[in-house]
Amino acid sequence: MLIIPNNPSLKSWITVNKDSDFPIQNLPFGIFKTDGLKPRTGVAIGDYVLDLAAVSKLGYFNDLRFDTQVFSKPFLNDFIALGQPVWRAVRQRVSDLLNAANAELRDNSNAQKKVLLALKDVQMMMPVKVGDYTDFYSSIDHATNMGKMLRDPANALLPNWKYIPVGYHGRASSIVVSGANFRRPKGQQKPAGVETPVFGPTKLLDIELETAFIIGKPTQLGESVTTSQAGDHIFGMVLFNDWSARDIQSWEYVPLGPFLAKNFVSVISPWVVTLDALEPYRVEGYKQEPEVFPYLQYTGKKNIDINLEVFIESKGTQAFKICSSNYKYMYWTMEQQLAHHTVNGCNINVGDLMASGTISGPDEGSFGSMMELTWRGTKPIQLPDGSERKFINDGDTVIVKGFAQKNGVRIGFGECKSTVIAATL
Amino acid sequence: MLIIPNNPSLKSWITVNKDSDFPIQNLPFGIFKTDGLKPRTGVAIGDYVLDLAAVSKLGYFNDLRFDTQVFSKPFLNDFIALGQPVWRAVRQRVSDLLNAANAELRDNSNAQKKVLLALKDVQMMMPVKVGDYTDFYSSIDHATNMGKMLRDPANALLPNWKYIPVGYHGRASSIVVSGANFRRPKGQQKPAGVETPVFGPTKLLDIELETAFIIGKPTQLGESVTTSQAGDHIFGMVLFNDWSARDIQSWEYVPLGPFLAKNFVSVISPWVVTLDALEPYRVEGYKQEPEVFPYLQYTGKKNIDINLEVFIESKGTQAFKICSSNYKYMYWTMEQQLAHHTVNGCNINVGDLMASGTISGPDEGSFGSMMELTWRGTKPIQLPDGSERKFINDGDTVIVKGFAQKNGVRIGFGECKSTVIAATL
Repeated sequence: MLIIPNNPSLKSWITVNKDSDFPIQNLPFGIFKTDGLKPRTGVAIGDYVLDLAAVSKLGYFNDLRFDTQVFSKPFLNDFIALGQPVWRAVRQRVSDLLNAANAELRDNSNAQKKVLLALKDVQMMMPVKVGDYTDFYSSIDHATNMGKMLRDPANALLPNWKYIPVGYHGRASSIVVSGANFRRPKGQQKPAGVETPVFGPTKLLDIELETAFIIGKPTQLGESVTTSQAGDHIFGMVLFNDWSARDIQSWEYVPLGPFLAKNFVSVISPWVVTLDALEPYRVEGYKQEPEVFPYLQYTGKKNIDINLEVFIESKGTQAFKICSSNYKYMYWTMEQQLAHHTVNGCNINVGDLMASGTISGPDEGSFGSMMELTWRGTKPIQLPDGSERKFINDGDTVIVKGFAQKNGVRIGFGECKSTVIAATL
Repeated sequence: MLIIPNNPSLKSWITVNKDSDFPIQNLPFGIFKTDGLKPRTGVAIGDYVLDLAAVSKLGYFNDLRFDTQVFSKPFLNDFIALGQPVWRAVRQRVSDLLNAANAELRDNSNAQKKVLLALKDVQMMMPVKVGDYTDFYSSIDHATNMGKMLRDPANALLPNWKYIPVGYHGRASSIVVSGANFRRPKGQQKPAGVETPVFGPTKLLDIELETAFIIGKPTQLGESVTTSQAGDHIFGMVLFNDWSARDIQSWEYVPLGPFLAKNFVSVISPWVVTLDALEPYRVEGYKQEPEVFPYLQYTGKKNIDINLEVFIESKGTQAFKICSSNYKYMYWTMEQQLAHHTVNGCNINVGDLMASGTISGPDEGSFGSMMELTWRGTKPIQLPDGSERKFINDGDTVIVKGFAQKNGVRIGFGECKSTVIAATL
């Protein structure tokens, strides 16, 4: 059943370029700020932001029965907490307001001035206040690549990998929105062949191409979510770059997992694309062999065909694409991840973020980390300016992009961008 | 320099039993509720709670220059965020008000009725809203015991253990306050000798005797805290029981660390004992050999002599002590843990919780988990009712207690209590 705001034939009275991430079928939610005004909720449409707080003030949401003050909050959490029927009603109403056939806003240029802002003139903020952040490890090609390089090429996948959507807890405080600059982290490393560890800036700074989903419906402690219920607990998705320091990681991670190697910064894209908008792009997932436990079984198409790209922009050069992957390469689905996360009664809250883990495809050009792309630095990448990259250099900007595309409709995520600056002395 | 409210000669006009955890030298902060009224801030004194919101309403805090509305909030976070000078001024003022020589409250029985409640009549709540929760692994005896049992008895400590205060991120959402009942968690386990994993309630439910400290002063992303600054970032300490499912843990934890084995519930004691109150109990720590990196070096007495005890109460029997440990057995100090946590620029927030990891001493009776106490179930504990425990049974209540004692003054933590109920079918 096609949700109505997704209809490919819909057109907006706002001009939307063919290659825009934000046609009327998308309508992602975000938090933005303009000079002197407080952060508030917006929806992206073409090159514009529709200011939902302003739309509400003008009375266009009067028929929706909820407190539209939520659109004046600095995070989406309170809006999301109102529940799926409200998200859907708002998305439907925004779709109506922007529809080419609807005169309400189209023919009211005074109102337009109050509710539409150019994307280039606004500052995007963190869309949600993240309570808990979990990172999974659900791409089979990524897990296989890492196993080949770091463990045993003949037994690359660990014994638990096809039974468990392996995951671990990450640090919520250091998740920042696209556009961030951050310092190269320092820490202990133990280079091969050296007797004792050394301390200094990481030499192996890496990216991880990921997506993340945002919890939209909470559970109580002791409650479990089934794979068939899981979709109702998910508000939407963002792009995610889980920066990693590989040398810090390899020294610290046994036995309790990655810690300082990961928690110095993670970056998310500002627009939350709803699961509803992504519904037409659902595709079949992997055949899971051996069969998974009943609590992880599902029916239907639960993977999603989302193109994912990574670019490096170094000083004075244009962004250069280093990776083309796809969310459909996930072995474990979001629904399985959530069912697993709660099977022991662990409770979830609105605004929790659950990331995919690095998403690599089967081909070399689709690997989602420098570790894999350069095969541990043994096959450096050539940039257009002639320089080489084994890992990420100071001054480099990394941009992650993502979009689903079908029937002439492109549901895009915008970008997730961040720049490394040199470590302090 | 002795902080004045700690003076052993201080006496309160409120009768405080010799064995009370809450003499006038302690004055821990907590959040409590009574029928029909909202949660608010209290200080424990003897068998009473001093209601700081009520104290403030009566004007007793008029000389303190901050918004005392913070005492009517449901968590201590806003109070803590006011900073160390405010915590200290409030603790000093409360000490004055309760001092036997001070007539202000002592001789005003009307006011007393409004500000003092019997501890047995109030419901204690979560003291803070936990942003991020980190669990360390800093007891050398615990790490050695685990290494002996699970890895190599001859090389029990992993190579990184004496260089790094090993830690990992935990789940904040499932931290609950003392008094909780929780269901035995279900999950995947792979018993020894079995080809494929099984699913069901954990068979190896364990406790972890821990303490935790609460962040009182935030940092920005990219900022690091030195060991000498670290104390100023810590508001106080609580007891902590980090419930663990050992069979789920052993199947899931390679390579990314414990996840569902730990995140089903962790329990904290409701009263936050300030670092100031604990200052007289500071003792020398371990000699750290090999020498640690400069960012982890410190001077002075940074361990604390806090007696820690664990009791099991099974149906129809009295609480039976199974463990007597001490916080002074920590190899890594709180200050080192915090310096390590931020050395890569990871930011911390007021209300973050950082737990010690299981605190075991050198003797068998001082081990902080059933895993160690029964040496993996090979040496069951006998309870007074004749029953045996290898791990924790349904219906068992586990109580953690803690107190520092010197010069006739006992700075106690109250208790951290929780009860296991059977898993759902």
